[in-house]
Amino acid sequence: MKAVVLLSGGLDSTVCMAVARDAGFELWPVSFDYNQRHSRELESACRVAEHFGVKRHLVIKTNMDSIGGSALTDQSIAVPEGEVARTDIPPTYVPARNLIFLSYALGYAEVVGADKIFIGVNSLDYSGYPDCRPEFIGLFQQLANYSTKAAVQDGRSIVVETPLINLTKKDIVLLGTKLQAPLFLTQSCYVGGEKACGKCDSCLLRLKGFSEAKLIDPIEYQG
Amino acid sequence: MKAVVLLSGGLDSTVCMAVARDAGFELWPVSFDYNQRHSRELESACRVAEHFGVKRHLVIKTNMDSIGGSALTDQSIAVPEGEVARTDIPPTYVPARNLIFLSYALGYAEVVGADKIFIGVNSLDYSGYPDCRPEFIGLFQQLANYSTKAAVQDGRSIVVETPLINLTKKDIVLLGTKLQAPLFLTQSCYVGGEKACGKCDSCLLRLKGFSEAKLIDPIEYQG
Repeated sequence: MKAVVLLSGGLDSTVCMAVARDAGFELWPVSFDYNQRHSRELESACRVAEHFGVKRHLVIKTNMDSIGGSALTDQSIAVPEGEVARTDIPPTYVPARNLIFLSYALGYAEVVGADKIFIGVNSLDYSGYPDCRPEFIGLFQQLANYSTKAAVQDGRSIVVETPLINLTKKDIVLLGTKLQAPLFLTQSCYVGGEKACGKCDSCLLRLKGFSEAKLIDPIEYQG
Repeated sequence: MKAVVLLSGGLDSTVCMAVARDAGFELWPVSFDYNQRHSRELESACRVAEHFGVKRHLVIKTNMDSIGGSALTDQSIAVPEGEVARTDIPPTYVPARNLIFLSYALGYAEVVGADKIFIGVNSLDYSGYPDCRPEFIGLFQQLANYSTKAAVQDGRSIVVETPLINLTKKDIVLLGTKLQAPLFLTQSCYVGGEKACGKCDSCLLRLKGFSEAKLIDPIEYQG
C-alpha cells in the first residue's frame, strides 16, 4: 500500500513519515517550494526523503509569494519573536496553505494509486492556524470523497491520516525517537537562517517539546 | 466589493468575468500556468484580463505536470477526438485541478479582501469532471468557511459563486453576448495549436453552444 506524505522537512512531517513507514506504507513524499522565507527547509525535506529511501520525492514549485499575506511569503512582514499570544492567529499563517498542499496531495495520491495521505498537523502545541484543526481535516475528507475520479467513478476513496493531531510536541518528539525518525535532519525555524533562531514560534514549540521529553534537540541553534 | 475570478482564458471563465463585472464587482482574476498542453490559453487569459481593465492579473505558476495523470498535463496521453462517451470521466480530467485552483483563489481572496470567488464551472454541457458539480462546490464552500483566518477569526466568509453551473453552452454563449464579454479573445481548445482543432471535446461543446445559439463563433478553427 502506498501513502503520499506531506513533507516540509520539519519535525512533525518527519515523524509522520516514520509513522507511515511503521504502518507498512510505501512512502511517496511531496514537498513544496513556494518561495517561502525558510526555503532551507527543503534541503531537510530532501535529506529526510533520501534517509527513508523513497522511490520518488516530488517537489511542487509554485509562486505562492505572489499571493503573500504572510510573514513566511512576504519578506516585508516580520516573523515574531517570543511566544505568540494564543488568542490570535499569528502573521506566520499562510492563507489556505494546508488546503493547497492537501489538494495537490490528493491529485498525486490519485495518480500514483495511494490509499492514504499523511499530514503532520497537530492542534495542541501549534500556532493556532485554522487549517490544522480536526474540523478542517474532517471537511477536507468529505470534499475529497467528491472530488476525484478515483472516488466518483471507481469508488476508491483516499483517506487523510493525521497521526499527530492530538499529540503534544513532547509526545511527537518521543514518538519520533521511538520510531527512529531522523530528527537530526529536520528544520523547524521560520526565519530560515543557517542555524535555527531559537526565538520564533516554531523554534519555541520545538524546544519545549524536546525539553519536556527530557531529550536534547540534535540540531544547531544560534548563539 | 472585490471578486477573485478564476480565468482560464476560455469561454466559460470569460463569461464569468462579465457576470461578475455586471454584478458590480472589482475584478481580481487569477490564472494558472501549470505546464498545461494548451498553455496558449494563458495568452487569451491575459488579453481578457486586459480587456476588462483589471488592476492586477495574478498568474500562479506551478509544475502540475510533475503529477501528470491527464492528457492535459502528460504529453504521452492523447487528447481524444470526437464526442466523448458521457458515461466515463475522460482522460482530459486533471486530478484535483479545480480543488487546487479554488484553494489558491481562497487564499488570494483572503489577502486582497474579496467577498466572492467566481468560477465558471457548469454541469450540463461539460466533460463529466467530478469537480465541476454542485455537490463539489457546496462541500468546498463548507470547507472554506473553516479554512481561513478571515472566516475563523474575523467572521468574514468568502463565498464561491458559480453563475454558469446550471446553464447549457447555448445559454452561456447568449449570456456572454448579452454582457459583451470578449468572446473573440477566448480559446477553449485542449490541443493548444495556433487555431482551435474543432475536434476535441472542448471545441465540440463550444461549437455546439454557438450553433444552438445561432451565432457565429468569432475564433478561428483549423481547415
